[in-house]
Amino acid sequence: MSEDMNSELLLEVTPAQDLPHNKITIVGVGQVGMACAYSILQQHIASEICLVDVVADKLKGEMMDLQHGLAFTRHCIIKADTDYSITAGSKVCVITAGARQREGESRLSLVQRNVEIFKGIIPNLVKYSPETILLVVSNPVDCLTYVAWKLSGLSKERVIGSGTNLDSARFRFLLSEQLNIAPSNCHGWIIGEHGDSSVAVWSGVNVAGVGISNEQGDDNEGWKKDIHKKVVESAYEIIQLKGYTSWAIGLSVATIVKAIMSNSRQVFALSTNIKGIHGINDDVYLSLPVVIGVNGITHIIKQKLKHNEIEQLQKSAGQLIQVQNSLNL
Amino acid sequence: MSEDMNSELLLEVTPAQDLPHNKITIVGVGQVGMACAYSILQQHIASEICLVDVVADKLKGEMMDLQHGLAFTRHCIIKADTDYSITAGSKVCVITAGARQREGESRLSLVQRNVEIFKGIIPNLVKYSPETILLVVSNPVDCLTYVAWKLSGLSKERVIGSGTNLDSARFRFLLSEQLNIAPSNCHGWIIGEHGDSSVAVWSGVNVAGVGISNEQGDDNEGWKKDIHKKVVESAYEIIQLKGYTSWAIGLSVATIVKAIMSNSRQVFALSTNIKGIHGINDDVYLSLPVVIGVNGITHIIKQKLKHNEIEQLQKSAGQLIQVQNSLNL
Amino acid sequence: MSEDMNSELLLEVTPAQDLPHNKITIVGVGQVGMACAYSILQQHIASEICLVDVVADKLKGEMMDLQHGLAFTRHCIIKADTDYSITAGSKVCVITAGARQREGESRLSLVQRNVEIFKGIIPNLVKYSPETILLVVSNPVDCLTYVAWKLSGLSKERVIGSGTNLDSARFRFLLSEQLNIAPSNCHGWIIGEHGDSSVAVWSGVNVAGVGISNEQGDDNEGWKKDIHKKVVESAYEIIQLKGYTSWAIGLSVATIVKAIMSNSRQVFALSTNIKGIHGINDDVYLSLPVVIGVNGITHIIKQKLKHNEIEQLQKSAGQLIQVQNSLNL
Amino acid sequence: MSEDMNSELLLEVTPAQDLPHNKITIVGVGQVGMACAYSILQQHIASEICLVDVVADKLKGEMMDLQHGLAFTRHCIIKADTDYSITAGSKVCVITAGARQREGESRLSLVQRNVEIFKGIIPNLVKYSPETILLVVSNPVDCLTYVAWKLSGLSKERVIGSGTNLDSARFRFLLSEQLNIAPSNCHGWIIGEHGDSSVAVWSGVNVAGVGISNEQGDDNEGWKKDIHKKVVESAYEIIQLKGYTSWAIGLSVATIVKAIMSNSRQVFALSTNIKGIHGINDDVYLSLPVVIGVNGITHIIKQKLKHNEIEQLQKSAGQLIQVQNSLNL
Repeated sequence: MSEDMNSELLLEVTPAQDLPHNKITIVGVGQVGMACAYSILQQHIASEICLVDVVADKLKGEMMDLQHGLAFTRHCIIKADTDYSITAGSKVCVITAGARQREGESRLSLVQRNVEIFKGIIPNLVKYSPETILLVVSNPVDCLTYVAWKLSGLSKERVIGSGTNLDSARFRFLLSEQLNIAPSNCHGWIIGEHGDSSVAVWSGVNVAGVGISNEQGDDNEGWKKDIHKKVVESAYEIIQLKGYTSWAIGLSVATIVKAIMSNSRQVFALSTNIKGIHGINDDVYLSLPVVIGVNGITHIIKQKLKHNEIEQLQKSAGQLIQVQNSLNL
Repeated sequence: MSEDMNSELLLEVTPAQDLPHNKITIVGVGQVGMACAYSILQQHIASEICLVDVVADKLKGEMMDLQHGLAFTRHCIIKADTDYSITAGSKVCVITAGARQREGESRLSLVQRNVEIFKGIIPNLVKYSPETILLVVSNPVDCLTYVAWKLSGLSKERVIGSGTNLDSARFRFLLSEQLNIAPSNCHGWIIGEHGDSSVAVWSGVNVAGVGISNEQGDDNEGWKKDIHKKVVESAYEIIQLKGYTSWAIGLSVATIVKAIMSNSRQVFALSTNIKGIHGINDDVYLSLPVVIGVNGITHIIKQKLKHNEIEQLQKSAGQLIQVQNSLNL
Repeated sequence: MSEDMNSELLLEVTPAQDLPHNKITIVGVGQVGMACAYSILQQHIASEICLVDVVADKLKGEMMDLQHGLAFTRHCIIKADTDYSITAGSKVCVITAGARQREGESRLSLVQRNVEIFKGIIPNLVKYSPETILLVVSNPVDCLTYVAWKLSGLSKERVIGSGTNLDSARFRFLLSEQLNIAPSNCHGWIIGEHGDSSVAVWSGVNVAGVGISNEQGDDNEGWKKDIHKKVVESAYEIIQLKGYTSWAIGLSVATIVKAIMSNSRQVFALSTNIKGIHGINDDVYLSLPVVIGVNGITHIIKQKLKHNEIEQLQKSAGQLIQVQNSLNL
Repeated sequence: MSEDMNSELLLEVTPAQDLPHNKITIVGVGQVGMACAYSILQQHIASEICLVDVVADKLKGEMMDLQHGLAFTRHCIIKADTDYSITAGSKVCVITAGARQREGESRLSLVQRNVEIFKGIIPNLVKYSPETILLVVSNPVDCLTYVAWKLSGLSKERVIGSGTNLDSARFRFLLSEQLNIAPSNCHGWIIGEHGDSSVAVWSGVNVAGVGISNEQGDDNEGWKKDIHKKVVESAYEIIQLKGYTSWAIGLSVATIVKAIMSNSRQVFALSTNIKGIHGINDDVYLSLPVVIGVNGITHIIKQKLKHNEIEQLQKSAGQLIQVQNSLNL
């Protein structure tokens, strides 16, 4: 369209401005990153979404595909580039990039490879958005959230891992299916490490304030053990069935980002620096129920954990610290 | 709750912050102001809604009534005070306050009384939110938008009247009812003065780009005249039937505010300073289709109006200028 | 518009049909009824809203005012009539009509007057929508829900009172304000009679499964007593300040209706026939946490109540039964 | 969880019921089918989503991945099976399954392969949902919509192709980008064949009723030709860049399904049987602006097309009829 056409239709009163304060960056446009972007777009959470990745072609394709949907959504600007300058002023940066485990590769080697990738991401994000909040989704999420915190120089409330928010959602879905009650009314929390050594806090599981775990006996026996096992195994199962997980983590991330952007003061199980609680005295990231707002994680909920639950937390913390100490940051 | 209780439940990581950039003030908590507030709350447009009025009791009652609904909505802070200091940092201020016509009172006398009321409102709003956008809803809206502009010292794109956005919505509803097609696909614009002398721009009325007014004959005859008459008379009819109008204007205002807050670049028929278009050379406020964004009205759409439509606009402008010149600002 | 105009624009493939299954009726277009209608409209809960009242003028005014907002909402048909035939096929009927207490009038006399009003409403609703769900909002809600059940002949799961859902929302808002945590994460239930003798179930109050009432001492002392007192008194206070309550009850009703329409299986504190639980052996309506779905209340949550909480429930039940027995149904 | 646990928590009033009338089936869980499912889930369009495919593993993985997100959305039941019996009572069936073009394969051979696939799908859908609406997304969409109509035995208003709704969205996005005006206010329609021979109806392109194509000259020259070329080529470009298109078509389908489910009477450019308009006298499916409701396409908008636009439509129709006649149905 020529300039003439524009001026034939429109009388300018003042130039249009950008809306800087609802900008979100997503690093990594794989299945997880794009499920996050698609959810954030559909739920009207951002006024601008920036996609960053190292693969320029894929990046452009994903950008165009989202843009063509804008006639069906509320207003949003979609940008994509391999250069981080487009991310300037982002309120939240979601990091989904990372290497996958090679056959025979040790966990530590995988983490170190991801550390190298993060060295190319985190400082660039903070350079252009010095007051941003980092939401790490890449796995192993607890370890990489620590890495992002160290590399960023941000205060600890501003570096968050998606943690066991998804594990908790899986737990609540399974309870919901058992009880035929909406997941929003089936309260339960999975804490600790995102993955095999996560902890189901049975003492707090309730519907309308009524505990559903009040009978005698061990939490590691019977249906309670089964349901937690299902939570832990379901990620593996989905990866085996469809090759990756994407939709639920996309919804989880969108929910967290929405809470930050709207300063909702909601409680989620997120990976945070838990030094100073449950007898942990090191800078280590594990998931606990936290209150989040526009400036990140402001409070940790002090759960009344059982002895064995605290032990499991401390054991996970110990293993993470060992990995952290071996990393070349 | 004691401090102790709080610290027993929560470990503070960092103090909670406010979210300054999605704050909206509504001045006047009558039926119109509260319909606006209720709509803005339900549509998740603001992170904070401030109510201001001179009647402290009513104000507190309305605030509490909204607050008690917060368990059913997304996060929002509701404040209310007779003191404007609570409004500091508002992105948009909606002004619904104003006097009603007394029996036998002249129009000019009513306007002057509202000018005096605005003198107590506008400078206070601008004092605490010097970069706000003013959205005037009080009637006569075109005249009072001019008054608000003069009293505020803001640049003209930042002072907007709700104008004929509601008249256009009524027009589209009536078309929709006739055609059994969604109002969102029945395109039509009512411009000019909000009220009796508004103009229906028949040349642009269309469904899917197909004009529905292509037959021969005068726009002031037959069903076209009838439908415009219905638009003009419907406000009077509703006032006669229920005492006031509230719901539709509340939805109209919420839609406009949402577009500003999200920088949506949507087009609405709003009261704006139309100096420099359609042969009007004075600072006068009338409704035309405009593009709005986060900094207010950025562009006016240049409609191709018929001779008699331009005449009507100029006539309305002339009458408004006469009133404006008589005002003691 | 002439038939010709229509056929010039449109080629009919097949006649348009109505969408029968998302129809909601609201009886009573006072402040409460209209806040319900406005919320249901804005939250896209219904494809058709029918308003019924005995005052034809007000009814038409409210209908028109809602209709003029349809250009700003998703599709909905708005109808209004004094004749109940328009309500045919309603999925849910919300009853907000009722007399207000006259000065010096006894409570029993008020109830009996409302019984007479309900005799004109309930049989008409059931006549045109024999499979509807009745949601009673009129006060005294527990007693009138019983009356509606008796007059309707519907099975008990289909007759519901809005009950202490609003009281619980007020409770959660107050907790939320204290803790600076979102109301959706401040879990607490007010049960029993809607009004002065309601019961706050402190044993179930929690954030993320962590009880906030674990210290020693009586629930009727200190800040716990204060917060419950505030819940009980707030309705009176708002009525004193603004003359009535409307917004919060409108949101409460919209939330309940949405849960029914979408079969969400959510848990709310609603007035239901509690015969057979907590030692109550009569058909009496009081609020308990219940699971609702498309066919009404399917389950009651068995709370583990304290001795004094059960006593209060039974006392309220006893008083209600006495009133019920005096009624001329 | 044991039966005992359930009955310890819940007192059954009446068994829970299903909500039959908001059920949607999606056939094919590839990238397109899953983008549709994810959008429909997030936009709260259905109370039940059924996924059907021939690959059981992938199917189960996608189902689980969506289910785990239910704690973050409103209520929805997610089912998946290779057996069509789970689809019984679907209001809309979205068909995204189909073969991709092999290297060197003729278009006709591709279509015939898809016909064979549809023979396994369509009769099964209609068997279990005899009053459903079929929405065909698989390509070549116009031809396969015809095939679905023939195989289904449904009346023509109930068989719809996603058609040029997406092309129109791309067109509006490009206009929006040029004008810096929201796509919802940039009106323009791409009609005809979804793909290379689609037609941009420039005469109806407008903003607020103001045409933006009023200058002299040919629609096939200058920026108008460029913008239409971009629309046509963008699908190819995205496929080259990321391997497939998914997000925009997912949003397009969700928008169409939402309009059907809520009987919104909106206008979209959809592939429909256009016999009897624009001089076409055969049963052939091409996109025109249509009004849709709960019973499918009820009206076609009679655009005033130019001679060359009608010619192009007729040419596309001719080619499609030739293909149709060669098919072994």
